[in-house]
Amino acid sequence: MIQRPRGTRDFTPQDMETRRYLEGNFRSTAETYGFREIATPIFEHTELFTLKSGPNIIDEMYAFEDKGGRQIALRPELTAPAMRFFVNDLTNYPRPLKLYYFGQCFRYERPQSGRYREFFQFGAELIGAPNPESDAEVIGLAAALVRGSGLANYNIRIGHIGVLRGRLAAAGVGPEKAPAILQKLDKKMYEEARPIMRDAGMMGEDIEEVIRITQLIGPVDLLQDFPGEASDYLREVFQVLRDYGFTNVQVDLGVVRGLDYYTGIVFEVDAPNLGAEKQVCGGGSYSLTELFGGEKVFSTGFAIGFDRILLALDKEGLNAPEKRLDAYVIPTSEGMRHRAFMITAALRAEGVRTDVDLMRRNVGKNFKYADAARARFVVVVGDKEAAEGAVTVRDLSTGEQRVVPIEELPSVVKA
Amino acid sequence: MIQRPRGTRDFTPQDMETRRYLEGNFRSTAETYGFREIATPIFEHTELFTLKSGPNIIDEMYAFEDKGGRQIALRPELTAPAMRFFVNDLTNYPRPLKLYYFGQCFRYERPQSGRYREFFQFGAELIGAPNPESDAEVIGLAAALVRGSGLANYNIRIGHIGVLRGRLAAAGVGPEKAPAILQKLDKKMYEEARPIMRDAGMMGEDIEEVIRITQLIGPVDLLQDFPGEASDYLREVFQVLRDYGFTNVQVDLGVVRGLDYYTGIVFEVDAPNLGAEKQVCGGGSYSLTELFGGEKVFSTGFAIGFDRILLALDKEGLNAPEKRLDAYVIPTSEGMRHRAFMITAALRAEGVRTDVDLMRRNVGKNFKYADAARARFVVVVGDKEAAEGAVTVRDLSTGEQRVVPIEELPSVVKA
Repeated sequence: MIQRPRGTRDFTPQDMETRRYLEGNFRSTAETYGFREIATPIFEHTELFTLKSGPNIIDEMYAFEDKGGRQIALRPELTAPAMRFFVNDLTNYPRPLKLYYFGQCFRYERPQSGRYREFFQFGAELIGAPNPESDAEVIGLAAALVRGSGLANYNIRIGHIGVLRGRLAAAGVGPEKAPAILQKLDKKMYEEARPIMRDAGMMGEDIEEVIRITQLIGPVDLLQDFPGEASDYLREVFQVLRDYGFTNVQVDLGVVRGLDYYTGIVFEVDAPNLGAEKQVCGGGSYSLTELFGGEKVFSTGFAIGFDRILLALDKEGLNAPEKRLDAYVIPTSEGMRHRAFMITAALRAEGVRTDVDLMRRNVGKNFKYADAARARFVVVVGDKEAAEGAVTVRDLSTGEQRVVPIEELPSVVKA
Repeated sequence: MIQRPRGTRDFTPQDMETRRYLEGNFRSTAETYGFREIATPIFEHTELFTLKSGPNIIDEMYAFEDKGGRQIALRPELTAPAMRFFVNDLTNYPRPLKLYYFGQCFRYERPQSGRYREFFQFGAELIGAPNPESDAEVIGLAAALVRGSGLANYNIRIGHIGVLRGRLAAAGVGPEKAPAILQKLDKKMYEEARPIMRDAGMMGEDIEEVIRITQLIGPVDLLQDFPGEASDYLREVFQVLRDYGFTNVQVDLGVVRGLDYYTGIVFEVDAPNLGAEKQVCGGGSYSLTELFGGEKVFSTGFAIGFDRILLALDKEGLNAPEKRLDAYVIPTSEGMRHRAFMITAALRAEGVRTDVDLMRRNVGKNFKYADAARARFVVVVGDKEAAEGAVTVRDLSTGEQRVVPIEELPSVVKA
C-alpha cells in the first residue's frame, strides 16, 4: 500500500470542516482590519531564503535542482515570498500596504508532535508605515485573530530590540559583535552568552544586568527602569493597543531576535496548554526589501502557526460547528427513482445540502445510510404521496414524520 | 532583483478576491450536492503517479529525491492522492463516499498561455457506486459548477468507452491490442491509428466505421445506431441528467481515453472562447484503488481547471463583486488620534471593514489615500464633534457629508 510521505498529513472531511472554519474566521477578521489577501507560489528560488536567513537554512528546507538546473526550494515561511512579491510588483500601491496570506510551508526535519514537514501558516505584513500605531495595528490583528479563534488561554508579549541593543552599545559592544550575543540571549543560552560578552569587552555587572533584562516580563510600567527611545516607542504601542481594547498584553524584554533585519518591536503569542512547543505566533518590525533588490522599506508582520492554534483549541475542547447534510432523498420503488432525482435537484437549487440514493438500496438500508451520513431529514418519495404532489419527511433527531406538499419542502428541510 | 520561478504566479489582492469568490462558489455548490472536502499533501511518493500514469510522467513532473533518499514529486493531479487517501484511511466510511478537493498542482513543461507550472484544480470523486445515476450525479456536479460560475458559453460531451471497445472486440481486436489503438483514436490521430488497426487484423470497413464513431457528436438519439449495454447505460445517465435539469448535454463517442483504469463513462466540458486550450473539465468512471494496494472499488470523478474557468469568465467579461473598505478613519489633530483608534476598534468589532490613518498624514492627504484605497466612507474624527459624542461621515461616492452620533456610526457605514 502506498503511504503519504513522512511528516505530511491527509485531512478527512471532519478535519477540513474545522480547518476551513478557522481559516474563514481568520480571513474575515483580517479583512475587518483592512488587510487584503495575496498568494505566492509553493516554491521559490532557494536564494530568496538564504538571503534572508543565511546558508544554513538549506539544511532545513526541501531544496532541489529543477530540470532546468535552477535551485528551487519549497517555501519554509511566507514573509520572504511576500516581500519578494512586493519588491517585484507592488511598490506602486498606496501605502501603508496591508497584506495577509494563508498557505502551506515546508521544513525538512524529524517529524514530532505538533511539528509537521508540511504545515500551514496564516500571516500578515503592514508595509511602509514605521510608527508605533502601525506596529500596534499589526499586533492588534494578531491578538484579534487569536482571540477570535475562541482560544481562551494565551499570552501576548511584546519587546523592542532597541532596549537590549542600546544596553550592549552603552557597555561598549560594537554593532559587529552584537548579533552573536543577541542570538544566544534570544535562546536564553546564558552560559554560551557570557564568554562572548566578556570577549566583547563587557564588564561583569553589565553582563549580569543584560541577562536580567532578558528575563523581564511584566506590565508596561516596568519600562520606567529603562528610559530611552525604545521604551517611549513601546509605551506608545501599548497605548494604541489599549485604545483597541487589548489589555492582556505584557512587556517581555527577552524577545530579542538575532537577525540583522529586525528593526524595532518584536512580539510573540503563546498558548501554555501546548507545553514545550507553545509559541503560536511570532512577529516584529523589519526591513527586508533591500536584501531582495528593492528600496529600503520598513514593515511589520507576523506568522501564526495555524496547526498549533488548532491543537490549542482542541486541548481546550473547542470544535467547529458541524456541517450536516440537510436532506437525504429515498425513493420507495423503482418507479419513484426519477421523481426522487427531480426533487433532489429542486432542493439543491434552493441551496439545501441534499443527497439521494445512488445505490438502489431498499428503504430500510437507505434509512441506515441516512443515519450514518448524519442527515437532518429524510425525504421519502412514495407512490401514494406522489399522487397528491407530496412527500413524507422524517426529522431524524426527533423521529417525527409528516406529509409535506412539494412546494413547501425546501422551507421545511432548509437549515 | 529576485524573481518568482518561471511558470509560477503571484496573486494581487484583486486577483485573490476573484479567485476566492469562485472557490467559495464551487465549494458551496459541491456541498449542496452532498460532497465533502478532503485535502492531501503538496508532494507524494513519485511511485503513486507512475503507477497511475506510467513511467513517462516523471519527465513532466517536479520529481526529486529528498534528503532521506525518497523519490518525491509535486503532485501533477489530485485523483491519485485522493484515491491513495481513500485506500489508506477512508475505506470504512459509508458508501457512496462523495469527496471534493481544491488545490495547487504542478507540471514541468514549457510555460505557455493558460498553462502554468503551478496551476489550480478543483475536483470531486464519488466512490463506491457504479450506477448510471452515480455517474449522472458526478457529471451533474461538474455541470452545476461550470454553470454556477456564471460562464455562459460551454459544451458538455459524454461518451462511454464501452461503445468503441465493443466495436473493436467485435472486429476481432483482443484486449491486449486495444489500448494502443484507443490512445491514437483519443487524440484523433487517424493516420497512426489505421496501420495499428490493420495489424490487429481489422478489415478496411471496420476500421472506417470505428473512425466514423470517434467523430460522432450529437443528441442522445444517435445512440440508437449503437445498440448494446454501453448505449443503454449512457441513455440512463442522460435520463437522470434530464431529471436534474441538465439538457445542454451531448453524446460524444470520440471521448475515448487510452488508459486501462477507465471503466465506463467519460466526459468533457469545453469553453470554446479559450481556443486551442479549451477543455475546462475532464472526468469519467475508473478503478484505481487496486493499483494502490486496496480492494477494487468503482469510482467516478472529474477535475476542473480552475485557472481556465477564470480565463473563460474573463473573456466573457465576468468579474467577481469587489470587496471594498467600508470606512477610513481620519483624526483631524494629534489630540484626536487615540479617539480615532477607539472608533476604529468599535467599527471592526461590528464587522465593518475599517482602516485608520497610520501615517500621521494631514486631512487632505488622508482623503486622497481614502480615495486610492476605494473606501466607501470617510469618518472624520474632529475636536468639535467629539465634544458632542459624534463624528463627521462623508460618503465618497456621493460626496454627501453629515454629523453622526457615535452609537449610530456602525449602522451608517456597514455595507
